[in-house]
Amino acid sequence: MASVALRFVNGSRLALRRSHTPAKSRTIRAFSAVMSPPSRAVVYDLHGSPDSVTRVVSLPPVEVKANDVCVKMLAAPINPSDINRIEGVYPVRPEVPAVGGYEGVGEVHSVGSAVQGLSPGDWVIPSPPSSGTWQTYVVKDQSVWHKINKDVPMEYAATVTVNPLTALRMLEDFITLKAGDSIVQNGATSIVGQCIIQLAQIRGIHSINIIRDRAGSDEAKEKLKRLGADEVFTESQLEVKNVKSLLANIPEPALGFNCVGGNAATLILKFLRQGGTMVTYGGMSKKPITVSTSSFIFKDLSLRGFWLQKLMGTDEAKESRKFIDYLLDLAREGKLKYEMEVVPFDNFHIALSKALGKQGSQPKQVIKF
Amino acid sequence: MASVALRFVNGSRLALRRSHTPAKSRTIRAFSAVMSPPSRAVVYDLHGSPDSVTRVVSLPPVEVKANDVCVKMLAAPINPSDINRIEGVYPVRPEVPAVGGYEGVGEVHSVGSAVQGLSPGDWVIPSPPSSGTWQTYVVKDQSVWHKINKDVPMEYAATVTVNPLTALRMLEDFITLKAGDSIVQNGATSIVGQCIIQLAQIRGIHSINIIRDRAGSDEAKEKLKRLGADEVFTESQLEVKNVKSLLANIPEPALGFNCVGGNAATLILKFLRQGGTMVTYGGMSKKPITVSTSSFIFKDLSLRGFWLQKLMGTDEAKESRKFIDYLLDLAREGKLKYEMEVVPFDNFHIALSKALGKQGSQPKQVIKF
Repeated sequence: MASVALRFVNGSRLALRRSHTPAKSRTIRAFSAVMSPPSRAVVYDLHGSPDSVTRVVSLPPVEVKANDVCVKMLAAPINPSDINRIEGVYPVRPEVPAVGGYEGVGEVHSVGSAVQGLSPGDWVIPSPPSSGTWQTYVVKDQSVWHKINKDVPMEYAATVTVNPLTALRMLEDFITLKAGDSIVQNGATSIVGQCIIQLAQIRGIHSINIIRDRAGSDEAKEKLKRLGADEVFTESQLEVKNVKSLLANIPEPALGFNCVGGNAATLILKFLRQGGTMVTYGGMSKKPITVSTSSFIFKDLSLRGFWLQKLMGTDEAKESRKFIDYLLDLAREGKLKYEMEVVPFDNFHIALSKALGKQGSQPKQVIKF
Repeated sequence: MASVALRFVNGSRLALRRSHTPAKSRTIRAFSAVMSPPSRAVVYDLHGSPDSVTRVVSLPPVEVKANDVCVKMLAAPINPSDINRIEGVYPVRPEVPAVGGYEGVGEVHSVGSAVQGLSPGDWVIPSPPSSGTWQTYVVKDQSVWHKINKDVPMEYAATVTVNPLTALRMLEDFITLKAGDSIVQNGATSIVGQCIIQLAQIRGIHSINIIRDRAGSDEAKEKLKRLGADEVFTESQLEVKNVKSLLANIPEPALGFNCVGGNAATLILKFLRQGGTMVTYGGMSKKPITVSTSSFIFKDLSLRGFWLQKLMGTDEAKESRKFIDYLLDLAREGKLKYEMEVVPFDNFHIALSKALGKQGSQPKQVIKF
């Protein structure tokens, strides 16, 4: 096998270089090119356990071509899907070696000669999210970058395109809800879950929330109710013959969100009204979803899935940017909030360890560059 | 509890009569009314095992009101849903005491004074299906009856509104299929399954069919292939890593039909293409459907249900009558066929015993009055 090293390819710092690649071309291209600053990046050369395969390295400058924008990253989160990409278990992932990270916020550092509408100093986010945000300088085509207002708290700008957008699109994309309707969800303490509660409440939609039985579940309930949850139940509270008897003045939900699977998904199905829809967007319990025949035939339930990655077509991406602006407005106004821990880049591996769940339950880790 | 007996109510022969009901009203109404002939009917007074709770009785004449049509029944099948209604396990069922049966064909015997478009001698079917077809004379409002051509084989006219209509609507109602596409189904030897094969083939749609492992499965395969099945597999043949590798020139199916549940449903999910839909319309194995989280998120499958009973709204019922005419045309031309055994009414309880599966696998039982 040929030896492998980092090289410049098409504005990307990371690709395989085999020993037979002529080094000359690099020198020639660099001669007249506008170059980015060097970048410090979280790189992985192999798929595997993130805390063993990732390392922080310096990457050399890359060319900023006519349509490129060089962005100085300000902050980027560690999401579960980032971890899955590094592990190699995510269906869509960059080829290794790769820089980690998928969303984040940055400030425009320099622009190529053909770039319009973006200037140094602007805040931008990659939208749709785009791989390689765990580094100090990112160079990508101008179409990748969405300019946002600079008055949004940085950590919300860094995290809006995955979890809050998932919550919003799931509320919008499946059925038409109106004020007074209700939804039901499990995994309600997750960031998506917290966003669903708040976004539903803004629309006058009631939320019925299911959480795990665990130490601190009473506090978790109170926290979710402060965010606007109408009802919060632990799974064991729902071991009753008719879960709907627990709903006082809330109508039966037409829409449910499942990010757990197993019994927690069955509980969603029990709450749903005739003709209701359950959307699965995660499987935290690693258990499958089991459904009775009569749920489909007589109760007319529909089961669907949601994956943000699907929303990559031009039209949907454009629509998502409007949704993102709306979500960032809410975050700025304090109407959309969730817990995060902002961690300096130097402490990346501590943050990664927390994100991997090795230090118990921790808030979302957001790297500040 | 008050004593209970059969009486006339609103043109129906069967309802509870409690001892305090004044018998006088009956005499007065009957005075000037047009009456049906007396009827021989399969009646059940209680829910329970059909062979113990049903009996054939004579029912007195009922009034044929201005908008009513009195129909001399010609033939009616014994469907699994008829059995479930008698057992009391079907979500929608008539109050007892009741006459059994739900679909069938008859000849108009007499019409009320306000009836238009129907005359004695016409062949009619209740559409949507309507309870109480297991009797020699049925009196119902003219809106119940759909006039059909008399050149259709009687047993097909008697059975078109449940199984063939289910097959056709499931092919039409969920996704738009075009020639060259494919579908996958389990329980393919059922009448619905056989209809799906034939209706798909007429449209140029390939069918992939899954059947149980059992003695005679080779013959069953040959029979389905003669009907137009492209592929027929037993469940054990599909115990391979990648079921799709078994499809030669057939595209991955976008639509699947499940009437079995359990492993047979999982096999449907394995065959479906990205973004495909599985429609559940039965659960013969009495096992639930188990689905992985990734089937929803990454494979973007949708799981739905089909219940003919839902198609009772005016518009859908009207549309169904067009579908029924189309299906009867196919049956007349020999393009839609399935096995039936026509049994004289006198042998009703033998037919019922066969329909209950007490004499091994038997063709659909159709009572001839």
